[in-house]
Amino acid sequence: MKKDILRKKITKIFNNHKLSKKHAEVCADYLIKAELVEAKSHGILRLKMYCDRLKKKLINPRPKIKIKKISSSISHINADNSIGFVSADIAINQAIKNAQKTGIGLVAVKKSGHYGLSSFYAEQAVKKNLMVFCFTNAPPALAPYGSKKSLFGTNPICFGVPTGKVPFILDSSTSIINRGKIRQAHKFGKKIPFGVALNRSGKITTNAKEALLGTQLPIAGFKGSGLAWMVDILSGVLTGSSHGGKTKDPFDDFTGPQNVGHLFITINPKIFVGKNFMNEIKRNISLVKRLPKAKGFDSILYPGERKNKAYKKNLNKNIFIPSKVLKEMDELDVI
Amino acid sequence: MKKDILRKKITKIFNNHKLSKKHAEVCADYLIKAELVEAKSHGILRLKMYCDRLKKKLINPRPKIKIKKISSSISHINADNSIGFVSADIAINQAIKNAQKTGIGLVAVKKSGHYGLSSFYAEQAVKKNLMVFCFTNAPPALAPYGSKKSLFGTNPICFGVPTGKVPFILDSSTSIINRGKIRQAHKFGKKIPFGVALNRSGKITTNAKEALLGTQLPIAGFKGSGLAWMVDILSGVLTGSSHGGKTKDPFDDFTGPQNVGHLFITINPKIFVGKNFMNEIKRNISLVKRLPKAKGFDSILYPGERKNKAYKKNLNKNIFIPSKVLKEMDELDVI
Repeated sequence: MKKDILRKKITKIFNNHKLSKKHAEVCADYLIKAELVEAKSHGILRLKMYCDRLKKKLINPRPKIKIKKISSSISHINADNSIGFVSADIAINQAIKNAQKTGIGLVAVKKSGHYGLSSFYAEQAVKKNLMVFCFTNAPPALAPYGSKKSLFGTNPICFGVPTGKVPFILDSSTSIINRGKIRQAHKFGKKIPFGVALNRSGKITTNAKEALLGTQLPIAGFKGSGLAWMVDILSGVLTGSSHGGKTKDPFDDFTGPQNVGHLFITINPKIFVGKNFMNEIKRNISLVKRLPKAKGFDSILYPGERKNKAYKKNLNKNIFIPSKVLKEMDELDVI
Repeated sequence: MKKDILRKKITKIFNNHKLSKKHAEVCADYLIKAELVEAKSHGILRLKMYCDRLKKKLINPRPKIKIKKISSSISHINADNSIGFVSADIAINQAIKNAQKTGIGLVAVKKSGHYGLSSFYAEQAVKKNLMVFCFTNAPPALAPYGSKKSLFGTNPICFGVPTGKVPFILDSSTSIINRGKIRQAHKFGKKIPFGVALNRSGKITTNAKEALLGTQLPIAGFKGSGLAWMVDILSGVLTGSSHGGKTKDPFDDFTGPQNVGHLFITINPKIFVGKNFMNEIKRNISLVKRLPKAKGFDSILYPGERKNKAYKKNLNKNIFIPSKVLKEMDELDVI
């Protein structure tokens, strides 16, 4: 489907579900961007989920988002159960302003929802020449080290920094693979890789449904479990949102709003070394890229390069929508 | 050896190597603390290394440490090639003050050296009821994903938060095991675990010396490599210190000062939700601890609990010093 047609279609669907035109466009753009960077697990296949939640009033289509200014650096946003894209978009812009003014910005969001890829927000800060951390929590998917039951989300650690070229954007879930990939495999009847998830009896499974009912494995055992816990504290406990496994699954749990939390930290990277920062980050990347390559590699990529390459490649192409998702879209369009 | 005697002995040795009494005591306390928390790889066995560098004037025994105030939240410290313990101790105290004043502190340190365990500094902020990140870079030990040559250090991610009880302190190197453990195995002729390091030909090795000459493996491949890179940018590029593999190995490289960088971010955890923070962090931990346990576990520990338990257990015991290290100490004492 042509990008512009898809954009209009998604905007109209969100509009039908009572989102304002502006908010519907923000959401459409983020969903399309996920398709363009080939993070399809965070793309159009989530549209129905968002609409289901809007219909059930678990996402507030007309939120009164309040920004509380705590200092020139620090803001607290009550998202009023808005769709995650909209509140995170407002929040990163606030975090950008705060860092531009004072060198450092800290913006917490409560009562929000799933916001797509953290890298979307990191990229905006990086394009304004800022360094940035984005944290968000998510519904139970990972068992804490020592437990057999899921509690942490796949809680990503996202960090971005300007490089003068393609932004350096690390966006790493603390699970071995992200949950969206398992959902995608489930939706299309595919298997998942070996060793990334356990079934309910605690055995390794390659069946996507069993994995969704069971638990995913954190990266590096106790370390990954600790990192997921850190993200839960930063985005849940600190911001005043749900945490400790209480964040609702947007696909399966319709008992209330998700109450996801986000935290953004923005830093002016020139604050300590001035203009020299750009020279040094370029040198840093060049030192790494010039290293001798391991077998099977002809270049060393930094985080963000692969998604950027995909984005450029796909920007002027049609977006492939699987027939199952097309059918969902048609059904959503006539409501 | 009795703790007090050991403390006097180390203080005297550092004093002999021209450190001021105050700085010698700071260093002695941190080295002993590493022994007490059973991080022996960061304890007394490093004493000779520090003294070797002091003798060669690669560590400045009488540094003129300058603190540049950028704003009430942000400070930049030039450590003047001091021993890492001393500058990091000053820096975390500055970061604590900044966060107490404004809600957030950001303190960068340049021209520093190896500072022991990040958790030492995190703990100080947590004891003042702050949330904290500590980052530091380190000499080449990890090959970036796609390369066969070490460049990143084992670059830890350290995060601390008050809990009302034992501090939550995650201190996770981005390598599968920390380099100190490999050095310790090398010093005492032990093997290292399978699958944590490669030899110079790129093959897995359990020989500590081969591993030191080869490269360690990051946690979770591309993700761990990205996290190590992030820490290099935060502590090296941002602060104006060495980075991109230029941080000198304190044990092997006597061609100049290490020029390690550190970055501390401190946050008042009550800034968004007030006193409720303490209730919620307690609830968070209790929700995790109450989960059904995996096979082989009778409790779920949060990061920091194990070290705290070790500390309490060892606090009133003698500290065991291997004869090899005792001999080194005696030699250092007569200089």
